[in-house]
Amino acid sequence: MSKGRLEAFSDGVIAILITIMVLELKVPAGTDLRALRAAAPTLGVYVLSFVVLGIYWNNHHHMLHATERINGAVLWANLHLLFWLSLVPFVTNWMGEYLTDALPTATYGSVLLLAACAYIIVQVTIIRAQGPASRLQHAVGSDVKGKLSLVLYVAAIPLAFVGWWIADALYVAVALIWLVPDQRIEAQFREASVAQTPARREGFKS
Amino acid sequence: MSKGRLEAFSDGVIAILITIMVLELKVPAGTDLRALRAAAPTLGVYVLSFVVLGIYWNNHHHMLHATERINGAVLWANLHLLFWLSLVPFVTNWMGEYLTDALPTATYGSVLLLAACAYIIVQVTIIRAQGPASRLQHAVGSDVKGKLSLVLYVAAIPLAFVGWWIADALYVAVALIWLVPDQRIEAQFREASVAQTPARREGFKS
Amino acid sequence: MSKGRLEAFSDGVIAILITIMVLELKVPAGTDLRALRAAAPTLGVYVLSFVVLGIYWNNHHHMLHATERINGAVLWANLHLLFWLSLVPFVTNWMGEYLTDALPTATYGSVLLLAACAYIIVQVTIIRAQGPASRLQHAVGSDVKGKLSLVLYVAAIPLAFVGWWIADALYVAVALIWLVPDQRIEAQFREASVAQTPARREGFKS
Amino acid sequence: MSKGRLEAFSDGVIAILITIMVLELKVPAGTDLRALRAAAPTLGVYVLSFVVLGIYWNNHHHMLHATERINGAVLWANLHLLFWLSLVPFVTNWMGEYLTDALPTATYGSVLLLAACAYIIVQVTIIRAQGPASRLQHAVGSDVKGKLSLVLYVAAIPLAFVGWWIADALYVAVALIWLVPDQRIEAQFREASVAQTPARREGFKS
Repeated sequence: MSKGRLEAFSDGVIAILITIMVLELKVPAGTDLRALRAAAPTLGVYVLSFVVLGIYWNNHHHMLHATERINGAVLWANLHLLFWLSLVPFVTNWMGEYLTDALPTATYGSVLLLAACAYIIVQVTIIRAQGPASRLQHAVGSDVKGKLSLVLYVAAIPLAFVGWWIADALYVAVALIWLVPDQRIEAQFREASVAQTPARREGFKS
Repeated sequence: MSKGRLEAFSDGVIAILITIMVLELKVPAGTDLRALRAAAPTLGVYVLSFVVLGIYWNNHHHMLHATERINGAVLWANLHLLFWLSLVPFVTNWMGEYLTDALPTATYGSVLLLAACAYIIVQVTIIRAQGPASRLQHAVGSDVKGKLSLVLYVAAIPLAFVGWWIADALYVAVALIWLVPDQRIEAQFREASVAQTPARREGFKS
Repeated sequence: MSKGRLEAFSDGVIAILITIMVLELKVPAGTDLRALRAAAPTLGVYVLSFVVLGIYWNNHHHMLHATERINGAVLWANLHLLFWLSLVPFVTNWMGEYLTDALPTATYGSVLLLAACAYIIVQVTIIRAQGPASRLQHAVGSDVKGKLSLVLYVAAIPLAFVGWWIADALYVAVALIWLVPDQRIEAQFREASVAQTPARREGFKS
Repeated sequence: MSKGRLEAFSDGVIAILITIMVLELKVPAGTDLRALRAAAPTLGVYVLSFVVLGIYWNNHHHMLHATERINGAVLWANLHLLFWLSLVPFVTNWMGEYLTDALPTATYGSVLLLAACAYIIVQVTIIRAQGPASRLQHAVGSDVKGKLSLVLYVAAIPLAFVGWWIADALYVAVALIWLVPDQRIEAQFREASVAQTPARREGFKS
C-alpha cells in the first residue's frame, strides 16, 4: 500500500485546519488600537495553535519520510490523530474567547494531550508495520521529546485550575521543545547516505 | 486517463468536508461544565460524521488502489458520490441541533443512504471500466458489507419516527461494520504479490 | 515548467469552492417539513453550482491532460479563471436567498459568463504555448459547446429581468450541454493510442 | 529531503486562503444595485488580496522549481511565510469593512510587509541549503523587485494615516510590479536548457 495518498490526505487536513482557524478571528469592531487590542488574546492563541499544527505537520513529514510500508492499521491510527487535531480550532476559539478561565484552558490542553497520544500511536503502528529494526524505530530512539510532552500536558491540565497562565506557559514550553525539527531522524538520514542500511544493521545489535 | 487527479480531487474534497464540520461546532457560551455539556450532542454527531467520512476516504483509497483504468463515466460517478458526501456537514449540523427530533435524524440517514448508493455506483462504474474479471471485482466479491449497510439505512429512516435513538444506533452500527478496513482487497493484494495476476486467473473461473 | 503543481493548485481551489458552498446552507430553523422546504431554493441553486464547478473541474482535467507545455502566461490565465470561479459561492448564496429576483439571477449569470470567457482564455493560452498543431487544438476543434455556452449566458442575463425562471432554465441548459465529458478530447486520445502522433500529423494538414 | 510535500502543503494552504476570503463576502442585503454597490469596497479589497496571494503562489512555484535541496530550516521558514499569509483574510475583512480608516489600512500593509520579509527569508534559507553558486541565487540576482516591494510597503504604512488611498495605491503598485511572472528565473531555465549547468558555471565567476 502506497504512502502517497496518506501523506496527501494528512497534508490536506492539516493545511485546512491551520487556515480555517483564521475564519474565527472576528473583524475588530472599530478602527482604533483599542479594537485591535481586544482581538489580541484570540490572536495569541491563534499563533500558538498555528505553531502546534505546524510542528505536527513537520514531524508527520519526517516520520513518513522514514516509513517504507503502511497498512490498514496505520490509516486508522492516522485518522485518529487527525480527529484530535481537527478539534484544535474548536478549543482555540473557546480558549481565545475566555483566556483567563480554567476550563477552556484545561480543555485546550486535553485535546493537545490526546493528539500527542494519537501521534505516538501512529508512530508505534508504523514501526510495527516496518518489521523489526526499522529505520524509524532507530531514528525515534527512546523518544524523550514525546514522553516529556505528555508529562508537561498531564501536569498542565490540573494546573490550569490553579492559574491559567501556568498551563499556558507549559503549552508554550512544549511547542518550544519541538520547534527544532527532529534532529534524530535528519541525522539518521545523513548517516544512511554514508552506509547504505545502517539502521537495519545497528538495529540487529540492539 | 490517469487516476492521480481523481484521487487528489477526492482527497481534497473529503479532507475539506471532514474539517469544515468543526467550523459549525459553536464555541460554548460560558466556561463551566454545563456550557461544555450543552455542546455534547453536536460533538457526538460530529464524531459519527468524522468516522463515516473517514470510512469513505479509507474505502475510496482501497478501491482506487485496485483500479487500473478510469474513464469519463467514473469521473462523473465520483462527483455524484462527492455531492452526497458534501451534504454530510449540513445534515450533521441539523441533527446535532435537534438531536431528539425525527425529521433531522431521518434526513441524516437519507443522505448517508444516497452516499452509500453513490459509492456502489462508482464501484460498478470502475469495475465496468476495467474489463471482465478485474482485480477490484474479485476483491469486492458479493459485497456483503455494502448491501448490509443499505438495508440498515433503509430500515433506520422510518424507524427515526419511532425513536430517534433507534436510527442513531443503526447509523453507529453501520460505521462499526466498516471500521475494519476492507480485508478482502488487502487479502487480494497479499495474494497478488505471490502469484502475479491471480485475480485475473481466478476471475476467469467464476 | 511542469504542469503538476498547476493541476494540484487548481484541484485544491475547485475542491474548496465546491465544498465551502455547503457552509452557507443554513441549518433549517425547525424540525418539520416546512423548515426543510424553506431551505429548498438554496439547496437547488447549490446543486446547480456544484454541477457547474464539477463540469469545470472535469473539463480542466481533460484540457491539461492534452497539454504538454505550460508557461507564465498559462499560470496567470488559470488564476484569472479561478478568480471568477471563486465568486460562484458568493453569487450562489445571493441567488439562493432571493431566488425570484432579477438582479441576483443576472449577477449569477454574469459570473458564469466571465468564468466561461476565462476558461476560453486559458484554452487559447495553452494552445499557444504548445506550438502550432497541438493535440489540444485538434481536440477542441471549433469548440461549438464553448461558443454555445457564451451565447446562452449572454442571452440569459437580460432575460433574467423578463423572468427569473427563463434565466435559470438557460443556466441549467448550459450545464446539461456540458454534463457529457468532452468526447472530442477522449476520442482524440483513443486515436492517439493507435497512431502515435496523429494530432500533430493531421494538424499540419488543416 | 524531498520538496514534493512542501510544495503540496504550501499549495494547499494558499489555495484555502485564496478561497476562504470569499466566505466573508456577505450576501448583499437586498436585490437592487444599491445593495450590490454596498458590497463593492469589500469586493475591491478581495480582488487585491486574491491577486497578492496569486502572486505569492506563482513566485513560490518558480522559487521551488529552481530548488534542488531543502532541509528543516526551509520547512520552518516556509511555515513562517504561510503564517503571515494566513492573516491576509483577517486584514482583508477589516480593511474591506472600514475602507477609509487609517489603522485597518496600515495593518493590512503591515501584514503584507511581514509576508514579504518572510518570503525573502525563505529565499535566503533555500539558497543557503543549495550550497554556493546555486541556480536560484543566480536567478534571483540582486532581487530589485523584492527590495522595491519592501520600500513601498514601509512607505505605505505611515502614509495610511495621511490618506488611506495613498497606501492603497501603493499596495496596488506593488501587485502590478509582480504581476509579471519572474522573468529572471524563467530566463535562467531557458538558458539552462542550452548549456547544462550555466548557473553553477557563471556562479563561480561572480
